[in-house]
Amino acid sequence: MNPIIFFGVFLHFVIFCHASGADIALDAKATLLHRIDSLNLLIYTCLLTLTVLTIWVFKHRRVSWLHETGLAVIYGLIVGAIIRYAGSTNQITHIDVHPAPDTKYNLSVPPDVLRFHFPDKLQVSSSGDIPVPNKTYAYSFRGEIVNIEQNEIDLKATFDPEIFFNIILPPIIFHAGYCLKRKYFFRNLGAILTFAMVGTALSALVIGSLMYGCVQLMPASLAASFTFLDTLYFGALISPTDPLTVLAIFSQLKVDVNLYAMIFGESVLNDAVALVLSGAIQNYEKRYSNDGGFEITAFLGAIGDFIGIFSLSLLVGAFMGCLTALISFLIARDKIFTHVREWPLLESALFVLMSYAAFLIAEVCELTGVVAVLFCGICQAHYTYNNLSSDSRNRTKQLFELLNFLAENFIFTYIGVSMFTFPKHHFDPWFIIAGFITSTLGRAVNIYPLSFLLNLGRKPPIPMNFQHMLFFSGLRGAMSFALAIRNTVSEARQAMLTTTSLIVIATVVLQGGAASHALAYLRIPTGQSQNDENEALPYRDVRSEGRGSGDGSGGEKARLAKLWGAVDSRLLKPLLTHARPPLTETLPAFMRPVARVLTTTHQYTQGDNTLRRTDSDSDLCIDEPQPVPTSIDPQLSINVRNGYGHV
Amino acid sequence: MNPIIFFGVFLHFVIFCHASGADIALDAKATLLHRIDSLNLLIYTCLLTLTVLTIWVFKHRRVSWLHETGLAVIYGLIVGAIIRYAGSTNQITHIDVHPAPDTKYNLSVPPDVLRFHFPDKLQVSSSGDIPVPNKTYAYSFRGEIVNIEQNEIDLKATFDPEIFFNIILPPIIFHAGYCLKRKYFFRNLGAILTFAMVGTALSALVIGSLMYGCVQLMPASLAASFTFLDTLYFGALISPTDPLTVLAIFSQLKVDVNLYAMIFGESVLNDAVALVLSGAIQNYEKRYSNDGGFEITAFLGAIGDFIGIFSLSLLVGAFMGCLTALISFLIARDKIFTHVREWPLLESALFVLMSYAAFLIAEVCELTGVVAVLFCGICQAHYTYNNLSSDSRNRTKQLFELLNFLAENFIFTYIGVSMFTFPKHHFDPWFIIAGFITSTLGRAVNIYPLSFLLNLGRKPPIPMNFQHMLFFSGLRGAMSFALAIRNTVSEARQAMLTTTSLIVIATVVLQGGAASHALAYLRIPTGQSQNDENEALPYRDVRSEGRGSGDGSGGEKARLAKLWGAVDSRLLKPLLTHARPPLTETLPAFMRPVARVLTTTHQYTQGDNTLRRTDSDSDLCIDEPQPVPTSIDPQLSINVRNGYGHV
Repeated sequence: MNPIIFFGVFLHFVIFCHASGADIALDAKATLLHRIDSLNLLIYTCLLTLTVLTIWVFKHRRVSWLHETGLAVIYGLIVGAIIRYAGSTNQITHIDVHPAPDTKYNLSVPPDVLRFHFPDKLQVSSSGDIPVPNKTYAYSFRGEIVNIEQNEIDLKATFDPEIFFNIILPPIIFHAGYCLKRKYFFRNLGAILTFAMVGTALSALVIGSLMYGCVQLMPASLAASFTFLDTLYFGALISPTDPLTVLAIFSQLKVDVNLYAMIFGESVLNDAVALVLSGAIQNYEKRYSNDGGFEITAFLGAIGDFIGIFSLSLLVGAFMGCLTALISFLIARDKIFTHVREWPLLESALFVLMSYAAFLIAEVCELTGVVAVLFCGICQAHYTYNNLSSDSRNRTKQLFELLNFLAENFIFTYIGVSMFTFPKHHFDPWFIIAGFITSTLGRAVNIYPLSFLLNLGRKPPIPMNFQHMLFFSGLRGAMSFALAIRNTVSEARQAMLTTTSLIVIATVVLQGGAASHALAYLRIPTGQSQNDENEALPYRDVRSEGRGSGDGSGGEKARLAKLWGAVDSRLLKPLLTHARPPLTETLPAFMRPVARVLTTTHQYTQGDNTLRRTDSDSDLCIDEPQPVPTSIDPQLSINVRNGYGHV
Repeated sequence: MNPIIFFGVFLHFVIFCHASGADIALDAKATLLHRIDSLNLLIYTCLLTLTVLTIWVFKHRRVSWLHETGLAVIYGLIVGAIIRYAGSTNQITHIDVHPAPDTKYNLSVPPDVLRFHFPDKLQVSSSGDIPVPNKTYAYSFRGEIVNIEQNEIDLKATFDPEIFFNIILPPIIFHAGYCLKRKYFFRNLGAILTFAMVGTALSALVIGSLMYGCVQLMPASLAASFTFLDTLYFGALISPTDPLTVLAIFSQLKVDVNLYAMIFGESVLNDAVALVLSGAIQNYEKRYSNDGGFEITAFLGAIGDFIGIFSLSLLVGAFMGCLTALISFLIARDKIFTHVREWPLLESALFVLMSYAAFLIAEVCELTGVVAVLFCGICQAHYTYNNLSSDSRNRTKQLFELLNFLAENFIFTYIGVSMFTFPKHHFDPWFIIAGFITSTLGRAVNIYPLSFLLNLGRKPPIPMNFQHMLFFSGLRGAMSFALAIRNTVSEARQAMLTTTSLIVIATVVLQGGAASHALAYLRIPTGQSQNDENEALPYRDVRSEGRGSGDGSGGEKARLAKLWGAVDSRLLKPLLTHARPPLTETLPAFMRPVARVLTTTHQYTQGDNTLRRTDSDSDLCIDEPQPVPTSIDPQLSINVRNGYGHV
């Protein structure tokens, strides 16, 4: 699998091409490009395979100081360095062209396609006197070249950054939404929303301001290339956290479920918030860059953008999730009537297609697909999951688990490789140091003051060691990197990419590795069961959940959350799933005829027992591949009944 | 989901772009292109969703005259027509360019990248006097334009044809290999290899010759554009069969397993054969097109190409499959020792990655990835599957089942849509009629003479009604279409694409729909169980399978097959899986020390019972989503013990 050898083969091949006729050479060029693409993919496939094998060895030897994501980054760095320094095969040829002087050209933007008339009168210096026919080739638009001298377009092991947003991130985010432990999520909703919404915005603002200050102190050439909006954009992209490593250790050590829910829930939501926030900043920049100064209407417009895009994306996702639930409800009803349960393939295909459609619809409507897919995932888990046959449940769960695993490790491998191979890095030591310091400060500003405010109204409060752990879990990951690599047109943006890559690598490897020590140092209790299945409390059913969570932290639920819970359990759950109570019981009297149509006999007849088992919250994973019933200590399941009372 | 509305929105958006500044317009153009891509994907996602929903309704109402692939084609045709005639939004702008006269240009092929200096001195007629900065944009190579006048590059709902070979076909072919019912496959190996290898080559030759004859009879302009190699290429691409619909009905009606195995096995292999064959024809064309005449050395070279590429690809695939088996064997041994069975995710990730690596390695080495992935799938099922935990077995099976389902329906939908939207169709009624007739004749030449020859040495012979059914199952599908759309540079190739599309659509919809009637008309016995799980014959174990199949059609196995069976059951199976007998029993005495190292305690201690259950052949699906034990009549499982004797 040595890439050096492969590149050698390519070089040989390139030379071979030039020695043949033009037509054959053109075919060979297409073949060569295809092989380079395949080789790039092969490099990453081998890296992922290597990561999987190392994880196996590590699990076997019970190594806990390095998580798979850290491993993926390190392998990526090594291979990236090899590719970079192995040999420079500059295979990309380019030529400068201008439009013909007589072209009637009526566009203000560059054309989509250039039709390049390949000349036959130019001298063909290499490979002798080959007759070159006068042909026309199509060239499609790729991007702007900012720095012509420096620019070297390089295909080495790099991908179009848009791939991250359209292929890699959606399954990761969907999986996060699908596997969100909704009970604990809703129980800590106040804290999670505060950290994710207010905290991320605050962190972006603090980092942006501090970085702008730092940049002004730096050499003038650097300072001039950064505007306040640039540093604010940096603040937005470096704010979302991705505590994969920490959560894996939490799961392994069975750390407190509420702490887990807060860290996981925050990281899921702040990805979405940061994405929309950075989009709003860019929109602001685009629209009002002419004036230069700060404009209050423009600023309010950006805030409006943020709220509008976020909530519309949320609605698109939720709508598609509910639509899937409704269709799967009809299929499930059909299954009950006809006693045929042989279509798990159709069910899971529908599930995947509708979820992907949520992403695409949001993108087509210029909303944020990632946000839509997150809320679609949450709705799928909350409603659709209950209607699926047990086979389809396993299928969808395992499919997205696998996709998530591969996508996550791919992105971390890529962060490592691209550190060396991506051509648009710009190493600026001052900016990097400032980035590390301010991103730490930004995380602190997110956690400590907000926790203090939350604790004023929260029972039980978030203890100090939990706050430290929340601060410590501020690893940066996939979303920060994807946002940074998306736009690298200016030197400022390139410096941001380099800094972000380094912050991601450092936090994932170092903080991730030290997570279990941090847990021990902070004396955070471990050994709790996160598995609801063992917590089958007979006195709680869906109705009681809807009317306010019955145990421990009930004080936290706001009136809005209670109202939502009532709507959910009385209207949406009976409408979209087979959960009891049926609509005939919950709807007011004048709606009875409608309710009767919408209720299945199954809902009338089933007992609460069936219901308990079909509720998704007790069934879906958080992070573990799947619960292994034999490995769970029965003692733990008794402990967890005490709820939150151990802190 | 009306695409007309969406295109209207786009048009509006394009107009909006032109009314703004150049920089913003450029950003908007990138956004627009992204949205068009998203919209294209959304159209296909919706079409697939619609197909799934209709399949559900059809299954509910027990409709059997239209299979899901036929449905996908029909929906595709409808939506394609709507997109085509809905409104022409010519969004693609193009401009003609020439290299600057002073360019020192030393390449015989067009460059990879054009650097287009966007002018500021040209008049910007629309959108007023916007100052356009002097910028440089990168344009990447896309392809050759053959007919400048006629050519309209159109992005409407079309994809790069290479997507089929690199993304859509691999999971389909892998799934076919993975789900191949190997016992019946090997029992009918002689017939399958004859039909797939000799038959496909014969069919290609016959179709090619007949088509060349037909073309000579047509108007001179048409005749001139076809060479014999062109028509031979057409013969190669139209020869592979894809009897999905027929097999689905077979599975439903429980048709004779040997007939099933012959049709399925042939269609799996002839895809691979046709792909390599067409590649060899193209290579021949490239290398020796200068001379025009037939050259015996060149012809032998093409045959050498065919054999070399096919067997090397086979080796790459088999090697990667065995490597995966070896690694999974080590993991499984580890699991036995440590009694930890919690890594199904790692196992299935490894499985997917190694299988994909087989494809990529073959592509990088200029072999045929599809062939590699087919034999990788067969090896994965034969060896690796036995080492996987039951959870991983389900995961991999279900994952590839889902991928196969989505990919298959996508390609048939695309065949329908592209009939209207793909810009390079060329309707030539004579060529189309000739194509239909010769492809039918080619199938007849494949089946009847070869069956006659096979029956000379085969016990029991292939009865006449089976031969008719084999002939009838010659539907054309994904592989023919993918090969036809790959190369559409000349008018001849475009006529081939149109004819191929029409043949695929007609055979899938009509022959697929009539399959159950054909079965009844030909009096082919139905109601056999294809499910080995109910056929747990205690007297047969893996050893007896290796030494020659113990029942019915034993006469068919050649000496080579027997030798292979012995190597497989005595060396490879014990080495790569936990199957008995252990190597210590099968290897000669002087190899004992090596054997002892390679044998697990599990292999020593387990009985034949465990072994039976872990053998993959009895467990993997053929086509049904999964066996439903309750729906199988116990009577059938007794019938099947009589083996092949019912004909």
